[in-house]
Amino acid sequence: MRTVDILAKKRDGGELSTEEIAFLISGYAAGNIPDYQISAWAMAVFFNGMTMKETAALTQAMLRSGAVIDLSGITGPFVDKHSTGGVGDKTSLILAPLVAALGIKVPMMSGRALGHTGGTLDKLESIPGYRTALSVDEFREILRRDGFAMTGQTAEIVPADRLLYALRDVTATVESIPLITASILSKKAAEGTEALVLDVKYGSGAFMKEAPLAKTLAQTLVDTGKALGLKVSALLTDMDEPLGNKVGNFLEVEEALDCLEGNGADDLMEVTFELAVAMAVLGGKAQTHSDARRLCEQTLESGKPKELFLQNVKSQGGDPQTLLEMRGKYRSPVSAIVYAQTDGYISRIDAWKIGSASVHLGVGRNRTEDAVCPTAGVEFFRKRGNKVKSGEAIMSVWARDEAGLNAALPQLAAAVEYAPDPPEHRGLTGEVIS
Amino acid sequence: MRTVDILAKKRDGGELSTEEIAFLISGYAAGNIPDYQISAWAMAVFFNGMTMKETAALTQAMLRSGAVIDLSGITGPFVDKHSTGGVGDKTSLILAPLVAALGIKVPMMSGRALGHTGGTLDKLESIPGYRTALSVDEFREILRRDGFAMTGQTAEIVPADRLLYALRDVTATVESIPLITASILSKKAAEGTEALVLDVKYGSGAFMKEAPLAKTLAQTLVDTGKALGLKVSALLTDMDEPLGNKVGNFLEVEEALDCLEGNGADDLMEVTFELAVAMAVLGGKAQTHSDARRLCEQTLESGKPKELFLQNVKSQGGDPQTLLEMRGKYRSPVSAIVYAQTDGYISRIDAWKIGSASVHLGVGRNRTEDAVCPTAGVEFFRKRGNKVKSGEAIMSVWARDEAGLNAALPQLAAAVEYAPDPPEHRGLTGEVIS
Repeated sequence: MRTVDILAKKRDGGELSTEEIAFLISGYAAGNIPDYQISAWAMAVFFNGMTMKETAALTQAMLRSGAVIDLSGITGPFVDKHSTGGVGDKTSLILAPLVAALGIKVPMMSGRALGHTGGTLDKLESIPGYRTALSVDEFREILRRDGFAMTGQTAEIVPADRLLYALRDVTATVESIPLITASILSKKAAEGTEALVLDVKYGSGAFMKEAPLAKTLAQTLVDTGKALGLKVSALLTDMDEPLGNKVGNFLEVEEALDCLEGNGADDLMEVTFELAVAMAVLGGKAQTHSDARRLCEQTLESGKPKELFLQNVKSQGGDPQTLLEMRGKYRSPVSAIVYAQTDGYISRIDAWKIGSASVHLGVGRNRTEDAVCPTAGVEFFRKRGNKVKSGEAIMSVWARDEAGLNAALPQLAAAVEYAPDPPEHRGLTGEVIS
Repeated sequence: MRTVDILAKKRDGGELSTEEIAFLISGYAAGNIPDYQISAWAMAVFFNGMTMKETAALTQAMLRSGAVIDLSGITGPFVDKHSTGGVGDKTSLILAPLVAALGIKVPMMSGRALGHTGGTLDKLESIPGYRTALSVDEFREILRRDGFAMTGQTAEIVPADRLLYALRDVTATVESIPLITASILSKKAAEGTEALVLDVKYGSGAFMKEAPLAKTLAQTLVDTGKALGLKVSALLTDMDEPLGNKVGNFLEVEEALDCLEGNGADDLMEVTFELAVAMAVLGGKAQTHSDARRLCEQTLESGKPKELFLQNVKSQGGDPQTLLEMRGKYRSPVSAIVYAQTDGYISRIDAWKIGSASVHLGVGRNRTEDAVCPTAGVEFFRKRGNKVKSGEAIMSVWARDEAGLNAALPQLAAAVEYAPDPPEHRGLTGEVIS
């Protein structure tokens, strides 16, 4: 088998065999196939795509490049959630304890902020003492005891994905549905979950800007996940406006606590409940959507999810009491307020612009090696559909430093669009792909 | 300027600016842009092509990566020929002295056999003592005195092409018309010629199997050459059957001598004369096709081209007398004859199969580092259109060794196709692209 022949086959629109894909990925992970052949292959995949059989074979080959976490000995069911990334998306922090409170184990392996999108690990690490680099033994023990555990990807998990993702990032081959699918699912399969709910976002703040493309990705993820033996379903959710009222690291932990206390913003709670419903159904805790929804709402009201969240903070090295005392106070001293520039309705708050400005504030990062600021971010007082008067406060802004604030403010102001009439309703599509 | 942004632009169908292309090529040649980004770019070019402006900019950027041979002080005109490669194609060995005898200087920089195609340098080196690695000073002096000189590409000439070609070879990105065009024209422009005739072949033994694709390549070469300030025209010629009656290194030198003595095979002489006509017109030695054709035929008859050929052999280190004495005798001792398998007409001799079998014989090579055998090859007694009887000799075969002979013989026999009726005429399209 020659790598160049496999490349030519994919270039010419052929379907690669499972053996050919395994040859490429295992050879690449072992250092026997050079970067320049894999980047040419990735570009050919960008243009010619992959069949479902190829995508499943790629995911399997990547999964086999590393270790799989063994959850045997822990009572299931195991259901995880993965989001394609957005702005203000703190659903993981609410969902994990909520679904754990239903009696489902949630083994959650999360990522970090990159570009305009936030990262669950960065948010959790804004809690003083909270550790996200758990050993496999710690992960298993916390999962067993608290019902969920939150960790980062370890070096043993899918090393081929780390190599391939870094290469795609510098060769303009990130935006390929089969490559995205294999990257997501190989990592999720490696964390040992049995079932997975995917939150596939569309809109300006999402990786996929257009709903039809997001739907294709969702369908590919679901079909490939099933081919791998996972129970899987996907929701298409709107990411044209930041989710909820806060964007930031500690700011989003705070908002998650608000939600766990029953005081969440409507858009955020709607996405959270719908994801929880899908997880409850996959985990066998309810048969119908309405039963599941009722169960999730009642469970949240019971207060148990908040208890589990605080218990997890303790389990992973933080102090729940300190966290509660920091609420509303842990803010960067460099701050400003953005005011409405006209009378009228807010017709849109562009998630991409908010996310990009947030990198300047210190919430996110452009390079993986950069540090983030726990206390930077944005709090919205008004959002899409609200009627405002010129000069009224739209958002509070906190920045790591003055330079970041000055760079962010014009972008934040420009993110807010106005119209004389109320905008049409925009919300969840309600579309579940399974 | 970021390489990844340039890759994304090409991937998404954009036209790269001259500056962006220069940034890629100069950065690659300098070692600042890694192979894996250039291979991804080459694959994107394979899919999305390049505009004429981009192709010219790429050729210029590659040309500027190295030295240009200075032919000042030598009286012109200067006209060279380039062929896209074939089987049994020894036209360079006949054309160079023929056109030099017209008073045109032919600064010829040639290549080596690779895969099923032959190489002018390998053929010339089958003459004992003949040196093809000339210094620039030697090249200039022999060109000035003999009217033509035959050399290989030096390390100073278009280093970016050597890097890029090696990379394309292992990343399935060879078959791209703009990349082929830039590779050919940057080298031809660097050898200092003013005018160039292109022999763009199609058929099984050619790089481009299909005539329409060959025509697109020819048009791209002509248009790009003109954009670079070269006088250029192209002929489409048939390479479905080996050209002439001999395939091999010394065997083809012999056949070139036959042609220079007026005893060339029809198919070979037709292509040679038509290329010579195009060179005579570009070099200003004739205005019309018929004038040029008459001039070329008369010049060949004069015997001067043969004298110039033998003079060049002497100039480049060989001994003309020894060469003449070796004719008909310098053969590998391992040989066989292929016989007709049926009565009828030969409807086709597949050039690709003959070329591939020739690699086993030792005529060519599959890897650039392999050596070739001077005395291996094939001589045809019968070709397309000839009526044969079963058991009649079709070709003599000489191999480097028994293993090579045994590997080649079944392929050689399979290359000959038979039919009960005479095949239709197949020859030059006569199409000149300028």
